[in-house]
Amino acid sequence: MIKDSDFIKNPKVPGPTKEEIRCILLCKSEVSEEDVVVDIGCGTGGLTVEFAKKAKKVYSIDLNPLATQTTQENVNKHQVKNKVEVIQADGLEALEDLEEFDVLMIGGSSGKLPQLIKKGYKKLNKNGRILVTSILLETATEAISTFKELSLKSEVVNIMISKGTPGQRGTMMYSNNPITVVITEKL
Amino acid sequence: MIKDSDFIKNPKVPGPTKEEIRCILLCKSEVSEEDVVVDIGCGTGGLTVEFAKKAKKVYSIDLNPLATQTTQENVNKHQVKNKVEVIQADGLEALEDLEEFDVLMIGGSSGKLPQLIKKGYKKLNKNGRILVTSILLETATEAISTFKELSLKSEVVNIMISKGTPGQRGTMMYSNNPITVVITEKL
Amino acid sequence: MIKDSDFIKNPKVPGPTKEEIRCILLCKSEVSEEDVVVDIGCGTGGLTVEFAKKAKKVYSIDLNPLATQTTQENVNKHQVKNKVEVIQADGLEALEDLEEFDVLMIGGSSGKLPQLIKKGYKKLNKNGRILVTSILLETATEAISTFKELSLKSEVVNIMISKGTPGQRGTMMYSNNPITVVITEKL
Amino acid sequence: MIKDSDFIKNPKVPGPTKEEIRCILLCKSEVSEEDVVVDIGCGTGGLTVEFAKKAKKVYSIDLNPLATQTTQENVNKHQVKNKVEVIQADGLEALEDLEEFDVLMIGGSSGKLPQLIKKGYKKLNKNGRILVTSILLETATEAISTFKELSLKSEVVNIMISKGTPGQRGTMMYSNNPITVVITEKL
Repeated sequence: MIKDSDFIKNPKVPGPTKEEIRCILLCKSEVSEEDVVVDIGCGTGGLTVEFAKKAKKVYSIDLNPLATQTTQENVNKHQVKNKVEVIQADGLEALEDLEEFDVLMIGGSSGKLPQLIKKGYKKLNKNGRILVTSILLETATEAISTFKELSLKSEVVNIMISKGTPGQRGTMMYSNNPITVVITEKL
Repeated sequence: MIKDSDFIKNPKVPGPTKEEIRCILLCKSEVSEEDVVVDIGCGTGGLTVEFAKKAKKVYSIDLNPLATQTTQENVNKHQVKNKVEVIQADGLEALEDLEEFDVLMIGGSSGKLPQLIKKGYKKLNKNGRILVTSILLETATEAISTFKELSLKSEVVNIMISKGTPGQRGTMMYSNNPITVVITEKL
Repeated sequence: MIKDSDFIKNPKVPGPTKEEIRCILLCKSEVSEEDVVVDIGCGTGGLTVEFAKKAKKVYSIDLNPLATQTTQENVNKHQVKNKVEVIQADGLEALEDLEEFDVLMIGGSSGKLPQLIKKGYKKLNKNGRILVTSILLETATEAISTFKELSLKSEVVNIMISKGTPGQRGTMMYSNNPITVVITEKL
Repeated sequence: MIKDSDFIKNPKVPGPTKEEIRCILLCKSEVSEEDVVVDIGCGTGGLTVEFAKKAKKVYSIDLNPLATQTTQENVNKHQVKNKVEVIQADGLEALEDLEEFDVLMIGGSSGKLPQLIKKGYKKLNKNGRILVTSILLETATEAISTFKELSLKSEVVNIMISKGTPGQRGTMMYSNNPITVVITEKL
């Protein structure tokens, strides 16, 4: 994985998703080199870049032009330009224009999570995966209930990471904020 | 418990120990109104004030004069002046001059944790409790091994608290750094 | 606090709420000796007993007769019989018959959380507190949204506790399951 | 990653390392197809199999013959036999006979962690990584202090994972025990 500090950042754009969380999301996505990935709410582009290193193609979508700009900068920096298309648009509208895909990563939903999941699910290939990351308690339960509505089984993983670097006095551990990931698969 | 924001703070003094941690420490200390408490590394005085509200007497010790000053200010503000003696001194030296006590709270040890525990243990009354809080990984294992040396059984509790206030978009949870508490009792 | 192992248990009744969680709940409830407490979904009675030690009166309610029986046994064992009334009933119906109170503790709601909160809120004295503990993600967000509906500000605390006892090889830490507490106050 | 339930288990052998932890360890190891990996204390073989899928060669070592047997079974089941050599031996002795390698994974050390790290470090190629997983508090601080002795900078990551599957009543989250990982690199 790329170090958090190796991403170009814009103070007005959230992210990048922290390294350990990217590890778990990439793992859980089971992304392979035949896969097309859609990353909605791409923010800084941390997940976009990691997915691009393993997938056939990544579509990265964000409504915020500062986010798509930062994502494009990171895509360029980490040399995955040939695999990534960055789209500045509302997630729902962007989904309209896309072909089928294998992994739908939702990191931001501008309050339209159920619609995004439902529309995305229609374009998800068989055995495709949807992953929703939540920093808000409500995002996780909304994802869960939308998957239930679609009769999809889901798995919920809450991740709390603390990190430290040994110093002279000892090793002080600093916590990252908790992230909840809700994952489902199209059978 | 007193709200974290109700303590007077000095940017150069650590603390106060967060509300939920104070809750658990006070609980685990089993402090009663007959108890004498010694609070070494009192910092901002958060624990001192809480102990004072329940104990007979609290001796609050810190080497840092800014810490003892801040503790005294909080002792005054929270009206427990008559029960607290604030001592600006090295913990080991201050222990020398104290009578027996029932609860030894060690929140800071300036690198002398084993000595503090050993000296404190001698002055601890039967059924007295020692509690060591650690934000450094090494402090916890040092407390554990010192208690082992003294043939004392100890209990270790690691506490991770995240907090949030519901907002318009939802409830974002923010993590406090983890705290490990090592507790023993003199049988 | 009473040790977890000092409560009488019934394998068919959940609880007791773990010691550290009881510490935080009692703290956050700000219970005093003038307070009347209602404990809905009392289960094993762990919280009931702790509240009884500090409050004027506790009404402990559970629909499950095995729960009320176990709570009564713990109330007897821990000698707070004179302060506790154990009621085997549906929470909503039991609330109907109660006078005003100061603390409403909801640990179990049989799927009627919003109604319980709303009915309870009506009988809550000024400056009274409602605390909802959740082991289900959905309980926390449901409590949050019900408090929002009532225009009440709430605080959310997620608690993760790991515990260990030092052994010969070292100190292995065992995690308790996470608990989320949602707290509000009637202004 | 392979699901936890897809590993053959022996009740007398610890592991497999949980899926999310394997994700993070593989990530942090930065293992590539040119790398030789040594997995000391391989237990059930969960990490061995994952490393084998990405590395050139894995040497899996455990003193417990039940562990090496289980690891071999999982190596066979997951079809990485051609890349893995399973060695039933004391870690220190086994290191003696090995050529240089790129990743040293220590998941069990039978009380000889400092020696294992020091001996392993000598055979670690430039830019090679050492990862120590700890379920005991003391293992983490021992790894940290040994790396310090070798003038190596290390990074410490504490991981707490809770998981749930949405059910009819809601989503109950179950915690795994915390794991601390200490990581260093040979510069």
